[in-house]
Amino acid sequence: MINVAILGFGVVGSGTAALITENAELIRNKVGDDVYVKRILDLRDFPDSPFAERITHDINDIINDKDISVVCEVIGGLHPAYEFTVAALKAGKSVVTSNKEIVATLGVELLTIAAENNVSYMFEAAVGGGIPVLRPLAEDLATVNRIERVDGILNGTTNYILTRMKDDGATFGDALAGAQKNGYAEADPSADIEGKDTCRKICILGAIAFGKLLDVKGISTTGITALSLSDIENAEKMGYSVKLIGSAFKSDDGRIVELVRPCFVPHSNPLSHVFDVFNGVSVRGNYVGDVMFYGRGAGSEPTASAVASDVIRIASGAAVNGEPWKAASAAETGCADEIPAQYYVCADTADVSAVEKTFGGIDKIIASKEKTAFVLKNKMSLVSLKEKIKTSGLSVSAVIEVL
Amino acid sequence: MINVAILGFGVVGSGTAALITENAELIRNKVGDDVYVKRILDLRDFPDSPFAERITHDINDIINDKDISVVCEVIGGLHPAYEFTVAALKAGKSVVTSNKEIVATLGVELLTIAAENNVSYMFEAAVGGGIPVLRPLAEDLATVNRIERVDGILNGTTNYILTRMKDDGATFGDALAGAQKNGYAEADPSADIEGKDTCRKICILGAIAFGKLLDVKGISTTGITALSLSDIENAEKMGYSVKLIGSAFKSDDGRIVELVRPCFVPHSNPLSHVFDVFNGVSVRGNYVGDVMFYGRGAGSEPTASAVASDVIRIASGAAVNGEPWKAASAAETGCADEIPAQYYVCADTADVSAVEKTFGGIDKIIASKEKTAFVLKNKMSLVSLKEKIKTSGLSVSAVIEVL
Repeated sequence: MINVAILGFGVVGSGTAALITENAELIRNKVGDDVYVKRILDLRDFPDSPFAERITHDINDIINDKDISVVCEVIGGLHPAYEFTVAALKAGKSVVTSNKEIVATLGVELLTIAAENNVSYMFEAAVGGGIPVLRPLAEDLATVNRIERVDGILNGTTNYILTRMKDDGATFGDALAGAQKNGYAEADPSADIEGKDTCRKICILGAIAFGKLLDVKGISTTGITALSLSDIENAEKMGYSVKLIGSAFKSDDGRIVELVRPCFVPHSNPLSHVFDVFNGVSVRGNYVGDVMFYGRGAGSEPTASAVASDVIRIASGAAVNGEPWKAASAAETGCADEIPAQYYVCADTADVSAVEKTFGGIDKIIASKEKTAFVLKNKMSLVSLKEKIKTSGLSVSAVIEVL
Repeated sequence: MINVAILGFGVVGSGTAALITENAELIRNKVGDDVYVKRILDLRDFPDSPFAERITHDINDIINDKDISVVCEVIGGLHPAYEFTVAALKAGKSVVTSNKEIVATLGVELLTIAAENNVSYMFEAAVGGGIPVLRPLAEDLATVNRIERVDGILNGTTNYILTRMKDDGATFGDALAGAQKNGYAEADPSADIEGKDTCRKICILGAIAFGKLLDVKGISTTGITALSLSDIENAEKMGYSVKLIGSAFKSDDGRIVELVRPCFVPHSNPLSHVFDVFNGVSVRGNYVGDVMFYGRGAGSEPTASAVASDVIRIASGAAVNGEPWKAASAAETGCADEIPAQYYVCADTADVSAVEKTFGGIDKIIASKEKTAFVLKNKMSLVSLKEKIKTSGLSVSAVIEVL
């Protein structure tokens, strides 16, 4: 019997308990042993739950229980998740989490503590919900490919809002209100719509791809709050979908660059067809080329699937503990604004020739009485582009990267 | 040092040798040891290859070499691949293959021999080229989810042809000729266009999802040779893409059903946006919901990535050998034609009311002077549908399942 404890009986915790119970026979066949949820930590009581008897309010009931070998930390946030995780790892228990904030922020330390105590710290559920992506990236693709870049639609809330704007012609504000009404956005949606959630996830993907964890606070992060409906409509006319994309790649001089921003994604890129609350993660390797992983990026049941798959790895002795990450130094970290990219620009002028004079080759021009929207033919850095806009004196309402 | 032998120095074999050599440092860091291609078996000599010195024409140079622990069988076909694989497994060597024919046909026996000899038999490259899909399905999704169904675009040649028909308005014959000219179809394309290649791959996916290998010869398999351009155009007008889909699922009475046929795939399904030579595999689990894996399904470098990732699993001691598959009995195998599904039908009549009278509720009607194309509102089995057509006396030019 493998005994598991769950910290936090919320959306993910209750889904995980339900999965391990409902699919018990299937799991037993795979593991060759029973996997049992022995304890659940929560501040609340759940008298009507089938797990009522197993609820505890005291973390020590779990840390001091020598029969519990795996702890699922699905509380979220940094504290007390951090203290509980450290205590569990030091007590010789493996820890599984869906908590992207703690992995993105404290992953170096927690992986090191796990390695020192000869246990596993696993977090498939922290990125892409139920999609198996961290393990295929770490254990299949990155073992034999030089990973060139990872790009992902990593936040279901923003992707739902962008889908509503495109399909229903809703403004950002109306689409956000609809998402909140339908339970796809929280009352305080800032972590989602400002790109912070995506930032944590691309930070984790980058660490797996390149072995170094960047400082989450240093990652250039732009959310979707400033997107106008007209830019989304222009994107469609030009053959793109607008998506909030987290990217991690190596610059030409070998630095790791990570950033989060809305992008025009060409319809030829499968990420452009990821809609509603779905997530997609695209990985480019020097042999495999482009691979994409797609599925539900959040929700009780999909996330429980990823948490449980980590538990089962540990229970069946199949967990692969790679080298703990290292923190990326400043010298190893590149500046996103200095990397040449293609851009969409919307200028507040009907004078197309003035625009062409300022920017050189432009393409896919959509001109109206007041505005000229276009895509720059040549790549340039955001720094150069902003400098060009400044010296031209042109007023510009949107600058959006083309992926 | 982990010594590897490669059987067959063709497209996949040369890619695998190149990958293991070019990415040697990366592999050493992951495995903690050097991985070296010691021997390559081929009937030909390759005097100009950097691997010229390692070529042998005698399989015994590999079987009898106690230093070689992993053999990559990338010859294809059943013989002599089968004899070489058995000899290698019995000599205590793990075998990695990209050979879908041998896995789909003889997988039960070869997995059993591997288990008896305490070595691994792995074949990530046999399905979906470079896409990591068999392992995430086996080791992540199926460990904790009851797998409900797997649907895949598993053959790049046919998907390329269908893409050309859709995008260029080419007939099947012209698109096939173009594919052959561009190296995307073989001189004898029958295994691809008649669906046999897809059949072998869905057979492997089904065995991983459900633990039982169906008899490949018993799987209902329809290729794309009978597809008309007008049906492909109708599909687009109705909001579908036409794709050759291999499916494996459980029927309501618990039997395993597998089949290969062209389908109308709704644009809301991400498989409908898999174009050109790309593959996509969609998996539905009872907790995770729908997950899709996407990438290059063939070619030297992507397939080499999958072969090498299996080699590295074995070299680093991380290979998970599940229970060998069992052969599905007749009682465990369902009949695809008896499963209710939605269908597109094109009838050779302009009399829409006669069509409605025959079929009941119909939808998305496209009527011309000679034909009426439509989608049936209600699901019915192919057996029932054909009976209905027969008794009505209507002439029908196309019956295509809606996925």
